[in-house]
Amino acid sequence: MFGGGADRLSDQITIALDAMGGDDAPQIVVAGANIARRRNPDVKFLLYGNEEDVAPLVARQRGLDELVELRHAPEKVEADDKPSQIVRSGHETSMWKAIEAVKKGEADGIVSAGNTGALLAMAMLILRRLEGIDRPAIASFFPTLRGETVMLDLGANIRCDARNLVEFAIMGEVFARTILGITNPTIGLLNVGEEETKGNDALKDAANLLRELDLPGEFVGFVEGDDIPAGAVDVVVTDGFTGNVALKTAEGTAKLINAFVRETFRNSFWAKIGYVFAKRSFDKLRSRSDPRRYNGAVFLGLNGVCVKSHGGTDAVGFATAIGVAIDMIKYDGNALLKSNIERLDPDMLRPRAAAAS
Amino acid sequence: MFGGGADRLSDQITIALDAMGGDDAPQIVVAGANIARRRNPDVKFLLYGNEEDVAPLVARQRGLDELVELRHAPEKVEADDKPSQIVRSGHETSMWKAIEAVKKGEADGIVSAGNTGALLAMAMLILRRLEGIDRPAIASFFPTLRGETVMLDLGANIRCDARNLVEFAIMGEVFARTILGITNPTIGLLNVGEEETKGNDALKDAANLLRELDLPGEFVGFVEGDDIPAGAVDVVVTDGFTGNVALKTAEGTAKLINAFVRETFRNSFWAKIGYVFAKRSFDKLRSRSDPRRYNGAVFLGLNGVCVKSHGGTDAVGFATAIGVAIDMIKYDGNALLKSNIERLDPDMLRPRAAAAS
Repeated sequence: MFGGGADRLSDQITIALDAMGGDDAPQIVVAGANIARRRNPDVKFLLYGNEEDVAPLVARQRGLDELVELRHAPEKVEADDKPSQIVRSGHETSMWKAIEAVKKGEADGIVSAGNTGALLAMAMLILRRLEGIDRPAIASFFPTLRGETVMLDLGANIRCDARNLVEFAIMGEVFARTILGITNPTIGLLNVGEEETKGNDALKDAANLLRELDLPGEFVGFVEGDDIPAGAVDVVVTDGFTGNVALKTAEGTAKLINAFVRETFRNSFWAKIGYVFAKRSFDKLRSRSDPRRYNGAVFLGLNGVCVKSHGGTDAVGFATAIGVAIDMIKYDGNALLKSNIERLDPDMLRPRAAAAS
Repeated sequence: MFGGGADRLSDQITIALDAMGGDDAPQIVVAGANIARRRNPDVKFLLYGNEEDVAPLVARQRGLDELVELRHAPEKVEADDKPSQIVRSGHETSMWKAIEAVKKGEADGIVSAGNTGALLAMAMLILRRLEGIDRPAIASFFPTLRGETVMLDLGANIRCDARNLVEFAIMGEVFARTILGITNPTIGLLNVGEEETKGNDALKDAANLLRELDLPGEFVGFVEGDDIPAGAVDVVVTDGFTGNVALKTAEGTAKLINAFVRETFRNSFWAKIGYVFAKRSFDKLRSRSDPRRYNGAVFLGLNGVCVKSHGGTDAVGFATAIGVAIDMIKYDGNALLKSNIERLDPDMLRPRAAAAS
């Protein structure tokens, strides 16, 4: 395992991993790390977890050992731990210690498949907000008719004012640019109609600000729920309540239709024959819309890169989440975010920030 | 055409139709009425529209003529008319006059495929709220993994307090009972988590009230976005902003996955062969999830039955919307609603109502 200190060369990226988070942890974390290091030759890992459980798993993954420094953490965050309690009592957990590695500068980012609320609360507390950001947000990406779309916030902030939504637009633009590689992302505000008179005051004010301000990306105005899967914009901006409901509704509906399709192939002799012929094409479809390819929600607006993997994912999905962290680090998403926030006329937003905090 | 006065026998149901509302009106309205009267032998229609345009269409539908009384309305509501303006200037429109027929007791309900905002504003103004209801809501139903689910509000009320959400639960229960024929509907409050600590104060207060109050149906607590398509509950209660976004996201995602499936069948020679075998089963699937089978949103909480059809539907879909109005009338949904609202301890909710209005 690579020596302590974690001095990193200029292109070397070090990711701290919470080995104990996720339904099938630590197996998927260790196996996921081994997939990720094959895809990204410059990556090293700080692996936080119960040494006794994790060390044999690392030993079993050929070639991983020399890229991993295993650091013992005696405790772990459970799925049902309350964020407010675990931030006080959980300083010996693998999650806490992994985040701390980023704070100390030993790692460039942290990935965990554990308890979302705990991860967000701990990351907020340890890493703190980026200067100029009022409210960090959770952003994720998914397949649409036209490619891939980012949506935020997905649940960090239940209520949002106009200033928060403008920040989300800036952060989402950076996500689309660094992680999806889109050069001039289009941005839409989620609403119940496209007319300027629709929605609440926060939405109307945010739309006005986004029209007036000279921000990166192209603000196209309001979009509606069906515009999300249609891929009408690259970045969908919304409050954490609506974003969470919309994302879960979309995931659930995709499952529903896929279940209908599977059932349809089974429901007659001829349909079963048809499936034999169409199977290869459907396998390709499945791989194209495989949720493991879209795994990795980023907590944007923090001093450090923090990525949340789906708790139920496997090693392949966990490797994708590591890849998201690597892209965010490699293309220096946080520096871009900071400079975009700084481009704002402070007088235009600061008073609102003061009022909101 | 049946004589004026519209005296109705006890089982006779009279529906007022806005002949001019909808992308393909008046054709789809007239043809839809003819499909509906075959399904419902006891129905008659008051048809409001431009006599010159509509009369020849009625004449062309064999057997419809004697069930229709055509009433001239010189104007129509356009898709882009602003609700606030059209309620003042639109008293000669087919929509206004059709709603008025319900107010006058000449019709039992009204169906329109026209401008949603205008229909809601006019219906509120002309029919007024049912006694005990603070905020009428829009409810609709759709297919899920387990059958059919009702959701409300879908856009009538952007912001809702706890009292509004409790009313929606009562109204949604009546919808599930009368239109879907579910005997003891389960009810869930849409939230970003199932834990009692999640969500805003309105949601927490509403959940407490629904647990305490002895209301019809079975309140199961909070549900999340993916529970909607999963059919986890029969009635999903939410504010009009979230409901609108969730419904449109689900519709859009269903379209997206269906597009993926169509493309998959086209993407190789063997897949095309497979489609030939599976076609009949896929036709059945298409018919099962045909949006025309789920057409008809009800404006609940008014003195009268008002149903909004999708603007882009065809005659078959419009007939479904008429069927929704007929069920609501036949099973006396509004009487049930009124008696359920009256069952509430007035002291429990009135102070909130006063504070909210």
